[in-house]
Amino acid sequence: METAILLIQCKDQMGIIAEVTQYVHMYNGNIINLEQHTDKESGDFHMRLEWDLMGYTIEKATIKFHFDQGIGKKWKMETQLYFSADTPRVAVFVSKMSHCLYDILYRVQSGEWKAELPLIISNHPNLQSIADRFGIAYHHIPISKSNKQEQEAVQRELLESHNIDLVILARYMQILTDDFASSWKNRIINIHHSFLPAFPGARPYHSAYERGVKIIGATSHYVTKDLDEGPIIAQDVTRISHVDAPKDLIKKGKDLEKLVLSRAVGLHLERKILVKGNKTVIFS
Amino acid sequence: METAILLIQCKDQMGIIAEVTQYVHMYNGNIINLEQHTDKESGDFHMRLEWDLMGYTIEKATIKFHFDQGIGKKWKMETQLYFSADTPRVAVFVSKMSHCLYDILYRVQSGEWKAELPLIISNHPNLQSIADRFGIAYHHIPISKSNKQEQEAVQRELLESHNIDLVILARYMQILTDDFASSWKNRIINIHHSFLPAFPGARPYHSAYERGVKIIGATSHYVTKDLDEGPIIAQDVTRISHVDAPKDLIKKGKDLEKLVLSRAVGLHLERKILVKGNKTVIFS
Amino acid sequence: METAILLIQCKDQMGIIAEVTQYVHMYNGNIINLEQHTDKESGDFHMRLEWDLMGYTIEKATIKFHFDQGIGKKWKMETQLYFSADTPRVAVFVSKMSHCLYDILYRVQSGEWKAELPLIISNHPNLQSIADRFGIAYHHIPISKSNKQEQEAVQRELLESHNIDLVILARYMQILTDDFASSWKNRIINIHHSFLPAFPGARPYHSAYERGVKIIGATSHYVTKDLDEGPIIAQDVTRISHVDAPKDLIKKGKDLEKLVLSRAVGLHLERKILVKGNKTVIFS
Amino acid sequence: METAILLIQCKDQMGIIAEVTQYVHMYNGNIINLEQHTDKESGDFHMRLEWDLMGYTIEKATIKFHFDQGIGKKWKMETQLYFSADTPRVAVFVSKMSHCLYDILYRVQSGEWKAELPLIISNHPNLQSIADRFGIAYHHIPISKSNKQEQEAVQRELLESHNIDLVILARYMQILTDDFASSWKNRIINIHHSFLPAFPGARPYHSAYERGVKIIGATSHYVTKDLDEGPIIAQDVTRISHVDAPKDLIKKGKDLEKLVLSRAVGLHLERKILVKGNKTVIFS
Repeated sequence: METAILLIQCKDQMGIIAEVTQYVHMYNGNIINLEQHTDKESGDFHMRLEWDLMGYTIEKATIKFHFDQGIGKKWKMETQLYFSADTPRVAVFVSKMSHCLYDILYRVQSGEWKAELPLIISNHPNLQSIADRFGIAYHHIPISKSNKQEQEAVQRELLESHNIDLVILARYMQILTDDFASSWKNRIINIHHSFLPAFPGARPYHSAYERGVKIIGATSHYVTKDLDEGPIIAQDVTRISHVDAPKDLIKKGKDLEKLVLSRAVGLHLERKILVKGNKTVIFS
Repeated sequence: METAILLIQCKDQMGIIAEVTQYVHMYNGNIINLEQHTDKESGDFHMRLEWDLMGYTIEKATIKFHFDQGIGKKWKMETQLYFSADTPRVAVFVSKMSHCLYDILYRVQSGEWKAELPLIISNHPNLQSIADRFGIAYHHIPISKSNKQEQEAVQRELLESHNIDLVILARYMQILTDDFASSWKNRIINIHHSFLPAFPGARPYHSAYERGVKIIGATSHYVTKDLDEGPIIAQDVTRISHVDAPKDLIKKGKDLEKLVLSRAVGLHLERKILVKGNKTVIFS
Repeated sequence: METAILLIQCKDQMGIIAEVTQYVHMYNGNIINLEQHTDKESGDFHMRLEWDLMGYTIEKATIKFHFDQGIGKKWKMETQLYFSADTPRVAVFVSKMSHCLYDILYRVQSGEWKAELPLIISNHPNLQSIADRFGIAYHHIPISKSNKQEQEAVQRELLESHNIDLVILARYMQILTDDFASSWKNRIINIHHSFLPAFPGARPYHSAYERGVKIIGATSHYVTKDLDEGPIIAQDVTRISHVDAPKDLIKKGKDLEKLVLSRAVGLHLERKILVKGNKTVIFS
Repeated sequence: METAILLIQCKDQMGIIAEVTQYVHMYNGNIINLEQHTDKESGDFHMRLEWDLMGYTIEKATIKFHFDQGIGKKWKMETQLYFSADTPRVAVFVSKMSHCLYDILYRVQSGEWKAELPLIISNHPNLQSIADRFGIAYHHIPISKSNKQEQEAVQRELLESHNIDLVILARYMQILTDDFASSWKNRIINIHHSFLPAFPGARPYHSAYERGVKIIGATSHYVTKDLDEGPIIAQDVTRISHVDAPKDLIKKGKDLEKLVLSRAVGLHLERKILVKGNKTVIFS
């Protein structure tokens, strides 16, 4: 079954759901999933609608235009439209650690994710051999303070030439420039190795050890120019105790990181995330 | 704000959501929440719809009749209608253990639950003093094999004379007759002190200890005539280890039981549960 | 069975465990539990030893003196000794919210905790009726900026006259003076309604909502003069989503708070906590 | 630092800990970790002792003999001795699913586990290409009802010729013969794709879906001749809801399975498991 997925956000008003569902129905679209959320604090309305395209009487290429010009304009909606038949293309940025990369490779190779992964970029040569094993191009692009801007240009050139839709920072350990983060808004997912906002920064497991917390976590989020402040997509935690030294926290943390990052990427690929300011609405 | 809550189930068909939302909108109802779920395996459609009654042009007393006669009939819907202004009345059945009862009393007294609790029934006198402290009628109705049927008649008489909507079995430890269970279908919530279907029966914590599991749980469910087999509403678990003796499992289990039972009751009171055969749809 | 519980901390050195266990054995003490932990980072050694006092050949009143003068002096140990036969006396400080108080009352009344609760202190009159129901003295001691020091003197006078061992701040919402916190070091347990160190301060659930986190938590800790910075005893978390408004976070948080606070108090009463600087060792 | 790890079990008696620790101390062994557990129900004593071998005055090759002949004999102890310097050799049995295998390969290749993986055995050819990528021998040994015994002989021949210490059944989907299970007692770890004892057998996720549970789990255990009944090493769970179809449970289950299996193997490799009848003691 091929479906269309429409994400909508606008101000809440009476009759939106009736009109949108009526509209899709009118053109012979059978709604498979509908989920909506109204934020009572802000008065914002969010909706995810998925319908079967079989027999839909509006042509695929004009669906978005037709909707936006009609209902979209009337209710001042921001919309995104995706098709289940399309296969997103992802690039992975890594540094020296391989745990997230392996998990991503598994999910792509096994077909769990409907995605293509033509490109791995790293500031270190260490994980080249893994890329080789999987027959994926590995670009070693070393970053220093002085060359960051030009090297990012090289990276972005690669992303464009490979028609990349989503960038996964799989423990990349480098801070992107504001310009990169802004240009790729809501299309770069990072994993932060702490339960944000606790312990932001570079050595959260050591900070967690110092503070003596009983639970550690990991956070995946879209990258924005404000470090560690982007919209949170997924978080998870695990129990620790006084028995755990920093190296144990790091080890337990890795299992969390790869799981939480992959969950976030999975949600993105299934078009289940709506970003609204600095927060996300996650459809189920 | 006074709202109406409509629960719907029927076979999935194209256009249901559009028609239902259009209908409510037509009579000036502003939809506050809409959640729907289609079970792809069975083809069943489930929906929970809540709308503001202010300005609704159909009179409260006829809303259900009007809906059922029109849309309901057309799509062969099973419906339930509730009003946020109504206050459900609950009775609690206990035996000798007080942990769930205290938790229930707290939630009623503090106003966390919109509910009235006029009645506690027990087969033992042990918890009378707690009822006294809270000024709630306590009926000691001892049950034996020989008198179960007539004592249940007394219990059910009490429930009816107090206009009880929901019965909470708060570790009641007695098995209801099939007749009682059937007459009060989907209106009796039990807490089972295990992670069903693991360890059904009377001494699950000892069984869990014997089997050496690493996690124990608790399960709240609607009571049906098949013991431990009713539709599951909520479950939760906690980690244990070889260090825990049966008495420790019992202690840890109590914290689970009261939490899981109260969660289930809370969901019922907010009309967020649809029962479908032996399963539940839990709206968020 | 009556037992002695000995908590030890000192620098790690070769032969400590052998010598301590040999010592207890020598005087006919049968070790029921032994748990030790060496912090490799700091080189600190921690131990909890529990032995059966039946037949122990050193008199109860001199056990600590005898140990401290011999082994304790030799290894420069800091020790605490407790007897399972003693019943700790606790006071509860509350403000307006009752969820933690109810949970504490249940645990004391049901005998889950071996503790006496002769005293509830509050800066508000709101929970008087609960105290009355349970026949516990309720002292309404209003606190303002100007009278804090003298009112604390009244509080501390009450604690002393009632021979209180442990103070539980059950959502007390007042900051104790440095002097109070220091004098009652490691004897005041607070519940903070967030997953510290995330969202310290007074309105953590609103902050969590604003930041859009996917998990919230609660933290119980010993009170020190540095607000929200005391040694953490227990933490737990629960999942939330975009569906949850601040009021939902507060409601879910309450279930966490009472559970986490009671867990911490339980651990304290069973003498399973060793405080070391700003961290805790929690024995199992 | 090279250490010796001694696992002990015997009946609990007064003075054991004192004598064992005194013994190690006598030969200049510095105890790094000591953990003991007495099962009050059965009266069994369990201990894990790790000490630094630097300067230990008993020769490595005779440590076990010396201990067993002296203290061991006296207290009727069952002992196991391991050296941190040794590298265990593991074989992985797979069928068609790759999620656990990838996770295992990552942990071996990245050095998270101190283990060698020279051998993958499967009844299907499907995962050959993964083995090739990692340069690991892949033996395709198809199993049918008629040839099971002779094919197992081939498998066991391979295990022996490769000096395998531990077999990991990474969703192998075949039942071993009683003889294989018995000969390799406590040296074969399986992952069962359910929260045992709930939903034993071959299609637990479908059963979980049918029953409408709200939580699913995975269980790793040592293989015994009683299917699904071996000593449980690790378990974990994840929340599900009515939204999840069987295929979603399978997907969520995979993430659990690989995590729980790897946790169990990690504990085994660190010699933190003592098997006692049908249960495990897991040291921390």
